[in-house]
Amino acid sequence: MWYQQMLILSPHQRGFHLVTAEITDRLNHLTEIKTGLLHLLLQHTSASLTLNENCDPSVRSDMEGYFLHQVSEDVPYRHDYEGADDMPAHIKSSLLGASLLIPVGQGKLLLGTWQGIWLGEHRNRGGERHILATLQGE
Amino acid sequence: MWYQQMLILSPHQRGFHLVTAEITDRLNHLTEIKTGLLHLLLQHTSASLTLNENCDPSVRSDMEGYFLHQVSEDVPYRHDYEGADDMPAHIKSSLLGASLLIPVGQGKLLLGTWQGIWLGEHRNRGGERHILATLQGE
Amino acid sequence: MWYQQMLILSPHQRGFHLVTAEITDRLNHLTEIKTGLLHLLLQHTSASLTLNENCDPSVRSDMEGYFLHQVSEDVPYRHDYEGADDMPAHIKSSLLGASLLIPVGQGKLLLGTWQGIWLGEHRNRGGERHILATLQGE
Repeated sequence: MWYQQMLILSPHQRGFHLVTAEITDRLNHLTEIKTGLLHLLLQHTSASLTLNENCDPSVRSDMEGYFLHQVSEDVPYRHDYEGADDMPAHIKSSLLGASLLIPVGQGKLLLGTWQGIWLGEHRNRGGERHILATLQGE
Repeated sequence: MWYQQMLILSPHQRGFHLVTAEITDRLNHLTEIKTGLLHLLLQHTSASLTLNENCDPSVRSDMEGYFLHQVSEDVPYRHDYEGADDMPAHIKSSLLGASLLIPVGQGKLLLGTWQGIWLGEHRNRGGERHILATLQGE
Repeated sequence: MWYQQMLILSPHQRGFHLVTAEITDRLNHLTEIKTGLLHLLLQHTSASLTLNENCDPSVRSDMEGYFLHQVSEDVPYRHDYEGADDMPAHIKSSLLGASLLIPVGQGKLLLGTWQGIWLGEHRNRGGERHILATLQGE
């Protein structure tokens, strides 16, 4: 069985956000899959998807602090049409990645106990974000 | 349906290159897939595959500038047999990743409007690069 | 055909470890797959899986040196409950990623000649690590 579905996330503030439930609640066919995989493609190049800790919000703010320091906005990039956060957002998107593949069993995501899906919003004003979900399995 | 096919990319200069068309033009069975996924594995450890902006070439040169600065070639690595770009290339390959999984619909890659496939060539003289494409779907 | 199997890796020292054989030797159905894909999800947020060089151990120690320098443990993170290596381990896990997807052909992983699967153990005392393997193919 193959299912494809577009998920539109409402605008999030710059930073990292736990979006596991926001994603799984909207998937129409997840509960039908006994064994399979869920693929998520964030169709943007200035945001990211990553797996990380699902409990303490300070992990997400420390992560934002790390990337703010690591990918400086004070560098004279050539690609700066949309502001100082433009090129750094592209860099963070490739460092973290824009897609995830997650195992599915008995209709649920088989993440580790402490794992959740994070959206990294790397623009100061990112707007809606489109995620194309491809679900396959038996 | 499952298809596997080796794609051989001709040598690219050091830096980041937009290779979406170079890849899709060679895929023999892409148009047969109604819903599916394309997996690409770059079979090397000193180059990378990533999704990023498909339009402005300065994004790619800024990206090269970032990684040149971020993964210094002036550090005394133990693994330096093939020159100062040797170990930094291995680091960049793991930071960016060597594989991609891309949704397919109606015989086409379902990337975002601004997304393209980038080859990161991290060696000064990289030679041909092999990408094993695995296409599956219905 | 779909198979799911939990692999439990015994504790590894902090650093990068070549675990290709440790993983493939335990997979029950790999040899039955003519064409397919193997997905590995490390169900933790303070360790990582990545593909890199499978031969010279100094690549792995240089990689550890790079990440030790790049993701400092001397920064005052808010999330430091489990010590100075706590938050840096979460950062490294997202930079490197916690999952891999590898093509399978004629019952074997189709990695490049020099590619192997690395476990990145980013905690000083990491304990056992769980990897959920999902194998599919025909």
